[in-house]
Amino acid sequence: METGTDGPLASLLADEPRVVTAGVSLFADALATQGVAPVRTEWRPPAGAGDALARIAGDERLDTANREAVERLQSARPHLVDLQAARDVIDGFDDGMLLHAGPPIEWADASGPLRGAIIGALLYEGWADDADAAVAMAGRGDVDLSPCHEHSSVGPMAGVVSPSMPMYVLHDEEHGITACCTQNEGLGKVLRYGAFGDEVVDRLRWMERTLAPLTRAALQAHGPIDVRALIVQALQMGDEGHNRNRAGSSLFLREIAGDLIEVDASTADIADVLRFINGNDHFFLNLVMPAAKAAADAARDIPGSSMVVAMARNGTEFGVQCSGTGDEWFTGPAGVPDGLFLSGYGPDDANPDIGDSTITETAGIGGFAMAAAPAIVRFVGGEVSDALRFTLSMYEIALDEHDAYQIPILGFRGTPVGIDATKVVRTGVVPAVNTGMAGREPGTGQVGAGLVEPPMECFVGAVRALADRVEPT
Amino acid sequence: METGTDGPLASLLADEPRVVTAGVSLFADALATQGVAPVRTEWRPPAGAGDALARIAGDERLDTANREAVERLQSARPHLVDLQAARDVIDGFDDGMLLHAGPPIEWADASGPLRGAIIGALLYEGWADDADAAVAMAGRGDVDLSPCHEHSSVGPMAGVVSPSMPMYVLHDEEHGITACCTQNEGLGKVLRYGAFGDEVVDRLRWMERTLAPLTRAALQAHGPIDVRALIVQALQMGDEGHNRNRAGSSLFLREIAGDLIEVDASTADIADVLRFINGNDHFFLNLVMPAAKAAADAARDIPGSSMVVAMARNGTEFGVQCSGTGDEWFTGPAGVPDGLFLSGYGPDDANPDIGDSTITETAGIGGFAMAAAPAIVRFVGGEVSDALRFTLSMYEIALDEHDAYQIPILGFRGTPVGIDATKVVRTGVVPAVNTGMAGREPGTGQVGAGLVEPPMECFVGAVRALADRVEPT
Repeated sequence: METGTDGPLASLLADEPRVVTAGVSLFADALATQGVAPVRTEWRPPAGAGDALARIAGDERLDTANREAVERLQSARPHLVDLQAARDVIDGFDDGMLLHAGPPIEWADASGPLRGAIIGALLYEGWADDADAAVAMAGRGDVDLSPCHEHSSVGPMAGVVSPSMPMYVLHDEEHGITACCTQNEGLGKVLRYGAFGDEVVDRLRWMERTLAPLTRAALQAHGPIDVRALIVQALQMGDEGHNRNRAGSSLFLREIAGDLIEVDASTADIADVLRFINGNDHFFLNLVMPAAKAAADAARDIPGSSMVVAMARNGTEFGVQCSGTGDEWFTGPAGVPDGLFLSGYGPDDANPDIGDSTITETAGIGGFAMAAAPAIVRFVGGEVSDALRFTLSMYEIALDEHDAYQIPILGFRGTPVGIDATKVVRTGVVPAVNTGMAGREPGTGQVGAGLVEPPMECFVGAVRALADRVEPT
Repeated sequence: METGTDGPLASLLADEPRVVTAGVSLFADALATQGVAPVRTEWRPPAGAGDALARIAGDERLDTANREAVERLQSARPHLVDLQAARDVIDGFDDGMLLHAGPPIEWADASGPLRGAIIGALLYEGWADDADAAVAMAGRGDVDLSPCHEHSSVGPMAGVVSPSMPMYVLHDEEHGITACCTQNEGLGKVLRYGAFGDEVVDRLRWMERTLAPLTRAALQAHGPIDVRALIVQALQMGDEGHNRNRAGSSLFLREIAGDLIEVDASTADIADVLRFINGNDHFFLNLVMPAAKAAADAARDIPGSSMVVAMARNGTEFGVQCSGTGDEWFTGPAGVPDGLFLSGYGPDDANPDIGDSTITETAGIGGFAMAAAPAIVRFVGGEVSDALRFTLSMYEIALDEHDAYQIPILGFRGTPVGIDATKVVRTGVVPAVNTGMAGREPGTGQVGAGLVEPPMECFVGAVRALADRVEPT
């Protein structure tokens, strides 16, 4: 420190002291009555969380619980083991029921793309003859809507799953966890973005009758595929696992191609499957998501842990679940992403944030690994420096650096992993999320991709609930 | 600038001036006689190049020639158009002749891996019955050795090509250039690393009878493949195109898979081909190299241009050709790479630098694009910061930034492209090269991978020859 009388710190002693206040106004008001004019800053702990944070601050039981949670999340090694109709892999998946992305929601509150996907699923299953009938059926409450997350599943965007849709089955032997997800349909006018025209339903039927059985047969010949190992490689090849999966899709195709062509099927069907996968750089997303879900589910239900185990959006609300707060959802309004639009679309066409794909960020990739995928800014907008900045800022709210998921450009530093809800509330730094954008109107499909901020109130709610559950020492 | 009497520049006026000298001692000696003790630095222009540089310095004709050269190099768009036996695609490729990597060399001067590959090729062609007979045949001068580069071809490592070996044919319509290369054999005990055992020859026969005809048939169904476009993508996926080609190999397999399985061949053969490609992350190197060769050849023979159009090593010498100096090779002793070794091998096992793969650096990728491929340091050694530093330092000796080949982490800056031999000599910065390492003993195969410095004298020789060819203004 400089000690002379003319250094930059000298004014600290020579000038009048200035007082900067933050948070509740009590202290500032008291100063004002004594003739001091404080500089009042806008920041304050989010409503209600200050008390909660104070009650659990320094509680070593929480640190222990969080260490266990983030260790379990990282040690999961989910393998792709099967691919079957949803009704055969999801317990109690009866006709008349549909799964969807995000926290619980009813038809009346559903946004356009979720409604569109529900209509498409009812047409695909043959439960409704046309879109009007589907709307009427859903409006009458004849469809039982339930979150994917509550059925060991995840769904990208609208995330609508009906019983006939084939689902990947991933299993993690380490923790005995299973997680499921449908196969990826490609981009544009697809069910998960809320489109439901004939092309959408026809493609879903082709996926059920050709893509899934051929993929399954190839998988059976190949044996279980270590999805985590593929993600590790993909992160060294410019993917971040959420909106950039070109490398992962390539590696998966390479891995399965030899067995796929030996499947007992027509050459034309096999070629169609290979070309479909080659034509879709997002194909691997639907394997990354259940791998992340399996890892996050391994870390559920650890008393006292403030680690986030699910972030998910239903197109209306953004919801968060924490390890130490069971199955309770903490929600806030879903924001509208900011990013790049497909030709012919603009900000007014975008629906609020939707999809379970934030399970990738929950598991330490996606927006948290954007430094590994600088080219993603050409898809979601922003500059390369933003991609680096997002990852670096996430270390502030993460519990650890991932053992396996590494970022070469950061000297192979592990990705920030394990979102600590208390750190989010303390720092005001919310998880970085990149996402596809669905059209607001049902039937539109994709309109763009971008970045979006989760609402702080989800994390505040989680911290308050956690504090209420922690018994005083 | 600071103008006061006590700023950091004040001592420039107050203190005794100090003189720093570089280059020839004439000036320093003159100062010494006047009582001034100069600080003599070690740097000096390489022997003989100072005069040559002085003769061409400021000659605008050279700038014009170099602008044309680097523009031609970048505008080439080589497509993979065919795959046929070398004897059918290389003019005058008669029995008894073998192509090899690097500048011209005779058997007597050939290092272990080149000898091993020659032995393997003679066995593969059936020109010799065993290794002893092959050595005797080559020793008698019964084999006509000729550089790949002089036959519109390039060969990785030993680069030995015999007439029966299938070669990719790449054609660039823009400049009417064709360039060829064999298919990649994989790593370990392979011909190009100087191995010649039964497994090597058996693999070459399988490549001739199965891999090549199936790849060709798929290519014919697919139509020409734009190799440059694949390289553009691969650079965004962590490849640099020389020793990291995992993304490029994946993208090529994806591109061809659909057509490959429709080829009229047995399912077992098709599956073998897919598994062979999937098992070899260097498969794409043998497409990158002829693509780079086609681009560099498009820039040949521009009078006055000091741009390098070939860098190549035969295991004994490193050779350079420049656009403005025709087919003349400028050579120096090949260095021994510094890097990482395969289990069981160490520095004493490594042969000096070998292979035509430095055509990648010549065309602005490979060592010049290492910033795009930070994970490569796990293969060639060094730190991630080195990968960035190599690329950044290459801008000092490059004529341009590549229009198409971009590095996402540098804000999509174009790779440094077009090595200016005069800049190499002026700056003392030699091209950054990463490379595989062959075992010194014939028959060993690969022992590691690393980084290597080209000898400065190649560039000095090129600059001198260029200066001799430029007519005084």
